[in-house]
Amino acid sequence: MTTTGTHSRTDLETWALERAVELGAYGPVAGGNPRVGCVLLGPRGELLGEGYHRGAGTPHAEVAALAAVPASRRHLLAGGTAVVTLEPCHHHGRTPPCSRALHEAGVRRVVHAVADPDPAAAGGARWLRSVGVEVSTAAEAGLAPETRSRAADLSRTWCTAVRRGRPWLVAKTATTLDGRVAAVDGTSRWITGPEARSHAHRFRAAVDAIVVGTGTALADDPALTARGPAGPLPHQPRRVVVGERDVPASARVRQGPGEWCHLRTRDLGGAVTELYRLGARHVLLEGGPTVLAAALRAGLVDELHAYVAPVVLGAGAGAVADLGVRTLEDAARWRTVDVRRLGDDMFLAAEMRRPVTEGEA
Amino acid sequence: MTTTGTHSRTDLETWALERAVELGAYGPVAGGNPRVGCVLLGPRGELLGEGYHRGAGTPHAEVAALAAVPASRRHLLAGGTAVVTLEPCHHHGRTPPCSRALHEAGVRRVVHAVADPDPAAAGGARWLRSVGVEVSTAAEAGLAPETRSRAADLSRTWCTAVRRGRPWLVAKTATTLDGRVAAVDGTSRWITGPEARSHAHRFRAAVDAIVVGTGTALADDPALTARGPAGPLPHQPRRVVVGERDVPASARVRQGPGEWCHLRTRDLGGAVTELYRLGARHVLLEGGPTVLAAALRAGLVDELHAYVAPVVLGAGAGAVADLGVRTLEDAARWRTVDVRRLGDDMFLAAEMRRPVTEGEA
Ligand SMILES: NC(=O)c1ccc[n+]([C@@H]2O[C@H](COP(=O)([O-])OP(=O)(O)OC[C@H]3O[C@@H](n4cnc5c(N)ncnc54)[C@H](OP(=O)(O)O)[C@@H]3O)[C@@H](O)[C@H]2O)c1
Ligand SMILES: NC(=O)c1ccc[n+]([C@@H]2O[C@H](COP(=O)([O-])OP(=O)(O)OC[C@H]3O[C@@H](n4cnc5c(N)ncnc54)[C@H](OP(=O)(O)O)[C@@H]3O)[C@@H](O)[C@H]2O)c1
Repeated sequence: MTTTGTHSRTDLETWALERAVELGAYGPVAGGNPRVGCVLLGPRGELLGEGYHRGAGTPHAEVAALAAVPASRRHLLAGGTAVVTLEPCHHHGRTPPCSRALHEAGVRRVVHAVADPDPAAAGGARWLRSVGVEVSTAAEAGLAPETRSRAADLSRTWCTAVRRGRPWLVAKTATTLDGRVAAVDGTSRWITGPEARSHAHRFRAAVDAIVVGTGTALADDPALTARGPAGPLPHQPRRVVVGERDVPASARVRQGPGEWCHLRTRDLGGAVTELYRLGARHVLLEGGPTVLAAALRAGLVDELHAYVAPVVLGAGAGAVADLGVRTLEDAARWRTVDVRRLGDDMFLAAEMRRPVTEGEA
Repeated sequence: MTTTGTHSRTDLETWALERAVELGAYGPVAGGNPRVGCVLLGPRGELLGEGYHRGAGTPHAEVAALAAVPASRRHLLAGGTAVVTLEPCHHHGRTPPCSRALHEAGVRRVVHAVADPDPAAAGGARWLRSVGVEVSTAAEAGLAPETRSRAADLSRTWCTAVRRGRPWLVAKTATTLDGRVAAVDGTSRWITGPEARSHAHRFRAAVDAIVVGTGTALADDPALTARGPAGPLPHQPRRVVVGERDVPASARVRQGPGEWCHLRTRDLGGAVTELYRLGARHVLLEGGPTVLAAALRAGLVDELHAYVAPVVLGAGAGAVADLGVRTLEDAARWRTVDVRRLGDDMFLAAEMRRPVTEGEA
């Protein structure tokens, strides 16, 4: 494929990657796998098939796209191009390797936006080259930088988790305007309104695990399930308590649906690495103040989700225990990625400032 | 005027009030006068002139609109209609009464959205009726409810201030996500970023006075001026310190531009009433925590402006001293009117919950 009509190969592949990103975004964030989209083009740029990964145990994006090619057009795969947001995998997991599937279908060229950071799955590009397939990163192929950056974003948090073997950790707070999580008498239901709570529940359904300290588990006896207006949401994260004290058998966190576990430790780095080993790539830390402060001090928090209600208390427990910060200059400044109004409350999402070059292949 | 072409009188007057609101919004909030817009229509609904009030010492909206009517069309005012967002005034202030000016121009009908709450200025509608002019509120005239409510909003904060003889009080906080206004060592410059600071300075330029407690004046020595990138903004609010301690002659708050004053009292209700007497209708309270808590406890705060930075401190001074609130149910819930992102920070404006029926004539 060189040029087709008035479109250059670069234009077509940029369009295909843009579409792959759009598709990949339908995939779930939770479930231990990255969000990936794939578009298959024929030798003259014809759109043959497209697919995305729908979650653990379902076909990878490349296999889904291959399956979507109509029988009458399968012959066009010979000499065709696969445009994928992430490097095709090269391992037998719950599905056969995508590298092999693309090669067997006759695909001649593979363009991928991000290199697979998973040592077990990587090597797809190398193997494809070894069998004569032309492999190119989206940067090498000269695709549009904004599209490449959207493609990198699709699997960015997952890639970060995999690269370092530790989950992407989001810490949540729900406070008054003066930073309180409870009144003097301990009442904290509800500081935020229904829109904010519903947003928080939808986010619970998008992570692999929710963590609280024993302090919160014992004081509040939270259920830690993801609930919608019609009951539990389809995906339930694993419910996790960290800390040395016992969690009574009657605790709501120990009741279904889904799994729970108690990590009897105060080593939070070890605790989240254990959750990674159990398959978690995205984890939500819901407090309390002691565990949140410990996680911040240990540099384990990648992202903050702050819900703030238009209420002033003037006294009561704060969201975060002492961090050892004495002067303003020593405080971490986060990079805001989202601000929105949720009913009467406001919501801010912010990420740790990291080098911006990470991620893209 | 009954109907003109395909438009009913109600449609035309609704359109005129909509336009009057649009014009009135160009007027300043500060300066002690309300924002008002006026549109003049001829006997057959012709647009003859329009105007708005540009601030203290300049013509009222009605007079500005009359002056804008071209000489060749002045005769059409006889039998014409004035549509005004606020009842025409009936007192000799810095300008002659608008009631008289409209009558002398030959206007036959006056429609106004809001009754003048100022006892000194009120009576315009009554007097106009007494000389044979047809006077109708926008509600009586059947104008569209959304337009009437926008018209009421235009002068709502000013009307509230005038009705009770006490300024509309906005309390500002600039905090971290955990509600701190300073680190343990007292450092607080800068918690919020340049966009938030610039927003706060533009708001300073829209009020009549800025108030801080002696604690803040002595600890921070703030200038309390309204500054833009190119130096002081055109309107400078009066700078006010409340509290019994002395403010040294060298304090920045005592230097120009504009006026300052020291209210040697801890009676905040008395202090803001004194500011009302000095002409202030919109006042900004910038702290500190003690004075803010006292103002909240006394029920003097009408609106909160909260700037929140994506920073977590874990320790340091809070935005508000103890309010005596012990349980969450006793805390006031504010009604959010605006949430926006300002650079990396978020901003929330919220008002006291009040009966919604206030305001409209
Ligand atoms: N409104 C909200 O957003 C919100 C959210 C959560 C909690 N809360 C409130 O927070 C209060 C509980 O506060 P909390 O601080 O006790 O709760 P916490 O942070 O959930 O639990 C603290 C406990 O966790 C254990 N732990 C685990 N790892 C630790 C580490 N690295 N460092 C220190 N301790 C560690 C310790 O107990 P062991 O002795 O068992 O090891 C510690 O006492 C409750 O009243 C709850 O209502 C509010
Ligand atoms: N980051 C921010 O947004 C921000 C804003 C403002 C202040 N601050 C910080 O706040 C600190 C100052 O705190 P603060 O609480 O002392 O300041 P403050 O609230 O400005 O001043 C308190 C003083 O005001 C006087 N006062 C007037 N009316 C009062 C009343 N009704 N009740 C009680 N006292 C009344 C009292 O002093 P008299 O004895 O003179 O009467 C009292 O000690 C500074 O460190 C400053 O940096 C931060």
